[in-house]
Formats: sequence, structure tokens, C-alpha cells
Amino acid sequence: MDVYIEPIGRLINEFSKLPGVGKKTAQRYAYKIIGMTDTEAQEFAAAVLNAKKKVRYCRICGNFTENDVCDICARRDGKVICVVKEPKDVIALEKLHEFKGVYHVLHGVINPMEGVGPNDIRIRELLARIGEGGVEEVILATNPDVEGDATALYIAKLVKPLGVQVTRLSRGIPVGSEIEYADDVTLSRAFIERKPL
Amino acid sequence: MDVYIEPIGRLINEFSKLPGVGKKTAQRYAYKIIGMTDTEAQEFAAAVLNAKKKVRYCRICGNFTENDVCDICARRDGKVICVVKEPKDVIALEKLHEFKGVYHVLHGVINPMEGVGPNDIRIRELLARIGEGGVEEVILATNPDVEGDATALYIAKLVKPLGVQVTRLSRGIPVGSEIEYADDVTLSRAFIERKPL
Repeated sequence: MDVYIEPIGRLINEFSKLPGVGKKTAQRYAYKIIGMTDTEAQEFAAAVLNAKKKVRYCRICGNFTENDVCDICARRDGKVICVVKEPKDVIALEKLHEFKGVYHVLHGVINPMEGVGPNDIRIRELLARIGEGGVEEVILATNPDVEGDATALYIAKLVKPLGVQVTRLSRGIPVGSEIEYADDVTLSRAFIERKPL
Repeated sequence: MDVYIEPIGRLINEFSKLPGVGKKTAQRYAYKIIGMTDTEAQEFAAAVLNAKKKVRYCRICGNFTENDVCDICARRDGKVICVVKEPKDVIALEKLHEFKGVYHVLHGVINPMEGVGPNDIRIRELLARIGEGGVEEVILATNPDVEGDATALYIAKLVKPLGVQVTRLSRGIPVGSEIEYADDVTLSRAFIERKPL
């Protein structure tokens, strides 16, 4: 790093903390900042501080919000709760304009290998929401991987006895893809979970 | 963008200004910032402002510096000047620990298609340095592309009459690569510029 002068080395180091950013990319970003006008660089830095300062987690669902309760929880009917791993999953689902219910962000999934147990994610909060009544269905929309499946099963076992319908997003061959290129696990899943027409 | 709350949308927008960063990547970066501690986010923003504030251009060579004159110009013998397009080229060459002379950063190359003429890059400053005397060689290390070659030729024509040796970095097949995979232009260059053993 001693080929860089201190302010550049320091900035490259900061950019390297972003996910997937190596030294070369961080250097490109740093040079871009240095090439900006003073105002542009100030706006960049201000956006970082502003986001960190203003973004909070919704008291009810755990999604990002600027307020105590997010817009989705404030405005929508809470009969159907869609459970997701992270706030970015809410964004992905909201882009569909399909689901009109509310969310519950777990902020992680059960992962014993990394020491994440059921008490480390927001399962307790989900059960409390259901306990308040009025919930008819819980859609488990964790990722279709080992941890996502395990987490969904764990939650299902706790929620079903409360008399709430529990569903899971369907797995199978992605729409528009070709069977030839589907991976083995996905393809055998599609067979096992085949549906009558 | 209305799926994002304002502070997140604003931060994603700022990250999207970095080279090669699309919306998805910008979103990942924004979430990383939001997941940071307050101190971490403050350090990130401070590094941006600090770099923008402290990084200047060396009065002599045009490279990045925190001072009036960069460390390389201040400490090294000025008999050999290596001419490059951008500050990042200085970094690339310094990493070799090979060249012990000084640099001259053009901050661009002649590119009529984009309206960049000889007066838009630091050629005048190079001639002034040579005019002060003591320069024995000018190494033209602009990129081996159309604009880099044109710029090197242009500078060579101006510098040679001043009695200074002018050289250009050699072109050819990259070391460790295979002839089979070399592109046509590089391969024919390697033929034309072949050397006696």
C-alpha cells in the first residue's frame, strides 16, 4: 500500500470493505472520487452519513424504515405475513406488485455452522405478532437452500400449532429456462414436487 | 426507485456514480453501509472527504500528492522522465521497483474524436521541464493503443529536436502468454519489431 499517498490509501482501504471489492476496484473508485468536484464528493459522503443516520428497522416487521413503523406495516392488512431473510428480499418481492400483505424480516437464517441459532434471528418477534391474533397465513419465503429450508421447517413447526396456515414458495425449474441446463437438485425437486394439470 | 425509502435510494444513486457500478451492486454497497456501526460509516465518509480535500497534483509532474511537489519529484534524479497518461500508471510502474527516474503525468491523451487536443493535456509543462535542462531521456509510456501511439509520436517530434533521447516501451507478446492466443495486431507487431538474439 505504500505506493499510494496516505489519503488515497485510506480511501482505497475503505472502499475495499464493500462486498466483492478488491484492491483494483477500490483504486478505481478512489480515483473517481478524487476526480469529482468538491460538491459531488460532499454529496457522496453526506449520502453515506444520511443513510446510516436515518435508516432504522421497523418495530413490527424489521424492514428498513425512516420511522418507527414502516409504510407497509402502517398501511396494509396484516392477515398474511411473508417471512424473509433480509430487507433486500422485501425489495425483490415488492417489485412484483403481487403480494399485498405484510412482511417479517428475520435478519438471518438458522445456521449452526456459523453459530446462528433460532434465538439469534427474529423468530420470537414473529410468534409475538401471531400471538396478537388476526393472522391467517404465514408464507415462508426464505431462500431455497439448506439454511433457508431448515429455518422454514423450524418456523413451520412453531406456527402450525397456533392454527395459522403455513406455506412455502414453490421450487422448480425457473420460468423461461431450459430443462437441459437446470442443475440436478433443482430438476429432481421439480420431479418430486410435480403438480397435476 | 420508489421501492426504496429515500435515504437508501439516495445512497444507491451515489454509489451508482462509481465506475462499473449498476443498481444491483449499488444496492449491495448501500446495505453494507447501513449494516456498519456508526463509527465505521463515519470513517468511510471521512475518508471520502479527506481524500478529496488533501489530494492535489504535483506542481512538477502532475501526479497525486499531499504537498506542492510529490515525493518522487522531491527525492529522485530528474535525468530520465517517464511520460504516462494517468496517475494510476505511475502506481503500476512504481510497483515494479524498476524505474528510478521521475514521471510526467499528461492527464489524458490526444483524442480528436473526443475533442482532446495537444493543448488539453500537459505537453506544454513537459516541454518546460525539458527546457530547464538536465533531461537526458524521455520514455513515452502512454498506452499501446491508437491514441497512446499518436500522443507518443506527437511528443517525440517536439522533444527530439531538443537533443533529448526519446524511447517508447516495447510492444509484443505478453510474457508467459501463448502465441496461439495473442491477438492479430499484437502478433504482427511482435513480428515487425522482432529483435536479434
